[in-house]
Amino acid sequence: MKSRVRPIVAQMHGYVPGEQPRDRDVVKLNTNENPYPPAPGVARAIVAAASDDLRLYPDPGGSLLRETAARVYGVTPDEILVGNGSDDLLSMLMRAFVGPGDVVVYPEPTYSLYESLVTIQEGRVLSVPFPPDFSFPPALQAAEGRLMFVCNPNSPSGTFTPLEVIADLAARFEGVVVVDEAYVDFAAATALSLLAEHPNLVVLRTFSKSFSLAGMRIGLMFGHRDLLAEISKVKDSYNVGRLALVAGVAALEDYAWMERNVACIVATRDRLQSALAKRGYDVLPSTANFVLARRPGEDQAPVQQRLRDSGVLVRHFPTPRLADALRITVGTDPEIDQLLAAL
Amino acid sequence: MKSRVRPIVAQMHGYVPGEQPRDRDVVKLNTNENPYPPAPGVARAIVAAASDDLRLYPDPGGSLLRETAARVYGVTPDEILVGNGSDDLLSMLMRAFVGPGDVVVYPEPTYSLYESLVTIQEGRVLSVPFPPDFSFPPALQAAEGRLMFVCNPNSPSGTFTPLEVIADLAARFEGVVVVDEAYVDFAAATALSLLAEHPNLVVLRTFSKSFSLAGMRIGLMFGHRDLLAEISKVKDSYNVGRLALVAGVAALEDYAWMERNVACIVATRDRLQSALAKRGYDVLPSTANFVLARRPGEDQAPVQQRLRDSGVLVRHFPTPRLADALRITVGTDPEIDQLLAAL
Repeated sequence: MKSRVRPIVAQMHGYVPGEQPRDRDVVKLNTNENPYPPAPGVARAIVAAASDDLRLYPDPGGSLLRETAARVYGVTPDEILVGNGSDDLLSMLMRAFVGPGDVVVYPEPTYSLYESLVTIQEGRVLSVPFPPDFSFPPALQAAEGRLMFVCNPNSPSGTFTPLEVIADLAARFEGVVVVDEAYVDFAAATALSLLAEHPNLVVLRTFSKSFSLAGMRIGLMFGHRDLLAEISKVKDSYNVGRLALVAGVAALEDYAWMERNVACIVATRDRLQSALAKRGYDVLPSTANFVLARRPGEDQAPVQQRLRDSGVLVRHFPTPRLADALRITVGTDPEIDQLLAAL
Repeated sequence: MKSRVRPIVAQMHGYVPGEQPRDRDVVKLNTNENPYPPAPGVARAIVAAASDDLRLYPDPGGSLLRETAARVYGVTPDEILVGNGSDDLLSMLMRAFVGPGDVVVYPEPTYSLYESLVTIQEGRVLSVPFPPDFSFPPALQAAEGRLMFVCNPNSPSGTFTPLEVIADLAARFEGVVVVDEAYVDFAAATALSLLAEHPNLVVLRTFSKSFSLAGMRIGLMFGHRDLLAEISKVKDSYNVGRLALVAGVAALEDYAWMERNVACIVATRDRLQSALAKRGYDVLPSTANFVLARRPGEDQAPVQQRLRDSGVLVRHFPTPRLADALRITVGTDPEIDQLLAAL
């Protein structure tokens, strides 16, 4: 059959997500999920909301979730948009800002979905490689474009770009600077504090990592109210369902639960980093809930496959820059023991 | 602050959804929700799935839901894609098929989201007005473009385009013909039976209407496997959460529950149509769960407002073609009594 899709889509491969096995016996360290459960209040809120009211559309603005998040994060509700996971928010940003030929800037390697989304918009990527230590590439500080993405902490490196650098970028960049803070609760600082000074800054959060709710699809976008009002024109009206909205509220209301899980993961991360270093891996200092472990020059695809055969899933990216590395999610201590034994 | 979004987005108004009041005392006949609850198995499935597993991403392919739907609808799982409501599927279709200048064809008035989505893609709308009886406009049968939308039953008219017309369109049209069957369970026939013959046909379904699950955001796209493989490149990997996936399966497994609710609504619809006709309204024969009632030449905006003041929400569209009409969702019998009393 002849392809009827747009030529640009016909040529695409599409973003490939990490494997989601049905088999429950594997140790799953490949998609940066939280190994600890969500706050108990989340299930209670879902059970309460799983009523006959499911016949009704959700609140298109997600007001209660925005009001709760506004209190927790010290902003106003109109400085927040809700998303069906932060992937939905990334799509919204691309559709709002990027038309054919428009330039999108980011350092790489980073979250590979950015590139897929730019391609769909027929935009142009201006990317600059991170130096070996994954500090922010100076060449990007003078770049221009419609959007700049800073995944912070960055995936898959786990490294952190200091807030001074981001503030400087936002002050210089003509377009909108998006700080994708999917992993920020595992790090020490957030760009939310920069929003008041920089009306062209947008910060993305997800409930998939620190809040242990990858299965619910909840993301938040923070930014200037005028900017968000424009972006919301490309939002699906009912993009977040009733149960996701109440789950998000419940998760925020037990913020301490999330912080305790994060503290456990950070402790395990330190142990994992040391253990990998002892086994001869180069490990970048991680500020996320995963670790990038490298054996310079040695393709790690066979190692990933051997780990898989022994029931441990980790992520390998078959690109020149990352072929000699494994990205390993920080699981529970017993899961990390199993990984280390299998290595 | 200067606008930084794409000029085309800056000019847009964005789709305006029907009002979703927090006040529970209103009679809500404005967004075509089902007045009856979802199947009891849905809440049971949600409660069972609201476990610690919410920390894990959903199955990106929604395999179990696709397998269940494939059995129910007599297709194979690779002839189905899952969506975060059918609005998500509409976005995917636009992003897959419509680039700048590409033509999208549909009769109007119809679901106004189509136009918003074409605008975001910088596509061009080729629309032809329905004749007064809302039969399919002959002028569209020779039209060409990348996509054609046939909302069937059509919103807001409630009218039905016969399958022979759709088969003929699919055979002639060069691009892809999308039959948006959001309301089809309230009608007599479905274009699913045409899929095997027409590889350029796509059928959309939603769980928001007949299955009483507007709050869960579940949609299905049916089409040729090769076509869906291409479209899935623009799908968010995790577009449907874990609870929506199990809710969809549970709803399909109690198909008879949905059919009973539909039978009640169809009976009430007949009564509503007669009662409106007696009150001097022109009512098109509806095959959906709503009725378009018209007083030719009389603006119905004040009537909508008066109904609102007496606690009954109905939909009014402030366009020349629809200003003299109200779109009224078929509620329960007591709700319809309340509407008729208020009228």
